[in-house]
Amino acid sequence: MRTRAAVAIEAGKPLEIMEVNLDGPKAGEVLVEIKATGICHTDEFTLSGADPEGMFPAILGHEGAGVVLEVGAGVTSLQPGDHVIPLYTPECRECDYCLHPKTNLCQAIRSTQGAGVMPDGTSRFSMLDGTPILHYMGCSTFSNHTVLPEIALAKVRKDAPFDKICYIGCGVTTGIGAVINTAKVEIGSRCIVFGLGGIGLNVIQGLRMAGCDQIVGVDLNADKKPMAERFGMTDFVNPAEVKGDLVGHLVELTGGGADYTFDATGNVQVMRAALESAHKGWGESVIIGVAPAGAEISTRPFQLVTGRVWRGTAFGGARGRTDVPKIVDWYMDGKIEIDPMITHTMGLEDINKGFDLMHAGESIRSVVLY
Amino acid sequence: MRTRAAVAIEAGKPLEIMEVNLDGPKAGEVLVEIKATGICHTDEFTLSGADPEGMFPAILGHEGAGVVLEVGAGVTSLQPGDHVIPLYTPECRECDYCLHPKTNLCQAIRSTQGAGVMPDGTSRFSMLDGTPILHYMGCSTFSNHTVLPEIALAKVRKDAPFDKICYIGCGVTTGIGAVINTAKVEIGSRCIVFGLGGIGLNVIQGLRMAGCDQIVGVDLNADKKPMAERFGMTDFVNPAEVKGDLVGHLVELTGGGADYTFDATGNVQVMRAALESAHKGWGESVIIGVAPAGAEISTRPFQLVTGRVWRGTAFGGARGRTDVPKIVDWYMDGKIEIDPMITHTMGLEDINKGFDLMHAGESIRSVVLY
Ligand SMILES: [Zn+2]
Ligand SMILES: [Zn+2]
Ligand SMILES: [Zn+2]
Ligand SMILES: [Zn+2]
Repeated sequence: MRTRAAVAIEAGKPLEIMEVNLDGPKAGEVLVEIKATGICHTDEFTLSGADPEGMFPAILGHEGAGVVLEVGAGVTSLQPGDHVIPLYTPECRECDYCLHPKTNLCQAIRSTQGAGVMPDGTSRFSMLDGTPILHYMGCSTFSNHTVLPEIALAKVRKDAPFDKICYIGCGVTTGIGAVINTAKVEIGSRCIVFGLGGIGLNVIQGLRMAGCDQIVGVDLNADKKPMAERFGMTDFVNPAEVKGDLVGHLVELTGGGADYTFDATGNVQVMRAALESAHKGWGESVIIGVAPAGAEISTRPFQLVTGRVWRGTAFGGARGRTDVPKIVDWYMDGKIEIDPMITHTMGLEDINKGFDLMHAGESIRSVVLY
Repeated sequence: MRTRAAVAIEAGKPLEIMEVNLDGPKAGEVLVEIKATGICHTDEFTLSGADPEGMFPAILGHEGAGVVLEVGAGVTSLQPGDHVIPLYTPECRECDYCLHPKTNLCQAIRSTQGAGVMPDGTSRFSMLDGTPILHYMGCSTFSNHTVLPEIALAKVRKDAPFDKICYIGCGVTTGIGAVINTAKVEIGSRCIVFGLGGIGLNVIQGLRMAGCDQIVGVDLNADKKPMAERFGMTDFVNPAEVKGDLVGHLVELTGGGADYTFDATGNVQVMRAALESAHKGWGESVIIGVAPAGAEISTRPFQLVTGRVWRGTAFGGARGRTDVPKIVDWYMDGKIEIDPMITHTMGLEDINKGFDLMHAGESIRSVVLY
């Protein structure tokens, strides 16, 4: 079939809207009509050329929601008409990782996904002249139609709005999951969130849901304060306004250090501050942000020997097929909010404006509606 | 009273054996006759002058066992004749740390202990000319008699031999506790221990007790292999003999990386290798060794984001008054071994020979018998 997509022809260039060929689903695969997709910093990271693993031409986008149109041979858990959210972290429920209680990093299709192809080693996308186009993070939601492995689709309820739940495909789950799955924050905890962008806001609402007593937000941009307060932030700290040492200030503000801290900035210096503002004896720090290639974190080992724990999280530690439908329920039940974070919507033809809004810091999330 | 002690007069000098004055126990304190004490690398670290917090003159030693001779006012949990092991990490059971489920770092007497004095701010030791001598780690087991706070003494069974269980006051508990309390290693785990000195051997026997399937020991000195095998090591790796990357070799040897790794070297480069040879998705690395002042650990945050966890441990995460008596029982029941690790014994007058043996790498543990 033919479909319309925003294609990343090469690094550093705007996406090009064009008709592309899409082959039908092979065995174990599913054809999905994407109804909405968010534009995430990870798409930008790859499009910019900063991602050392970026490959072109490719159809980016990994934060979508849509409807199953057709299933390939052997697909048993989905059928046409099902509403789904694509998963860049799949859940096969059979690999060593899926069967291990401590991780969500399913490895079933890792190598082919990383190579921009489906599990059989080929791409379903091509230009009209036949040139293959690569998949991206196994999702390629910047195409109106896409093909994914069955294990990379979470089936969700049909009354949930695509233009909001698409965000659960990445940012919402990453932020809330970091709190619930990775840190396992207990009721009454004191926490600090570094970076009040989309991920940080979702960490904050995860902390609110977890019953925290104190939720400190740290950001150099004071404009982010009102929105963060809406999501549950109790204290705002602007590092530029702190006299003296930021870590010392945060330790004092939290009565000895936070039970849990979260880095949602990707800045390795901030990651260090996040670790060191965790409480002696038991404070845990979770790295969510993606650092520039080659950047390293460091600290004195004394920080760990005196009881702090340093962790990281990917896709919020969520097992997508199991956890994403629950998060959709939380949204529909009003336990979490998404609507205020979707600050801009646009058609696919305007997708490059979404990237411009991100660069300008004017959006929390832009969503493309097909 | 007067007692005989090995006094650290100043950094870098041998200990001097001399008669010293010892005041009796004040309220909440206990007078103990030390029967045996190990000589630990931490004593050496301070005596050498490398410890930035080292103070002199002081009576070092923190790995002892002895008998209660007299209790001060208000002491209720101990009485003369009780056998005890001094605790450099006390357990008050009342402070915020003791009441927190995730830490053993009791803070009740932290500031005075760090200052080399008893909780009332004064020292019980002095030279015969009246010059005060500082306590060390709240223990000062290089004196035949010493005074400690009640909360810094673990009461143990009377049939346990002092010359062996003194080692439970530091090295044994640190190594075994890192496995049991800090890492909480599960049956069937694959683990790597870096550094096969006294701590490393105790990590290994902790791992054996925890039912590990694979226990890899890493050390540059192949002479350590037989003893480590005796304690449970299943695979020995000499980094000097590995062609190519040590981490890659260890990841392959453990079938994808270890479930738990332990640094018992204090070398920050080794700490990094320990983290990075932990299994993607769930591997945890525990820092036990004490690094040189100012040294920093570092890694790419990707190592954590892909599921590895970086921790540290002090005194093996043990709550001394609760856990040390249990470890004494394990020794008496034959669940753990100590005897082969006590490679040398000597009288107090020969204590400097114990330090020489440590420097020469000839001892695992030297124990001074009073
Ligand atoms: Zn994303
Ligand atoms: Zn899997
Ligand atoms: Zn020691
Ligand atoms: Zn305490």
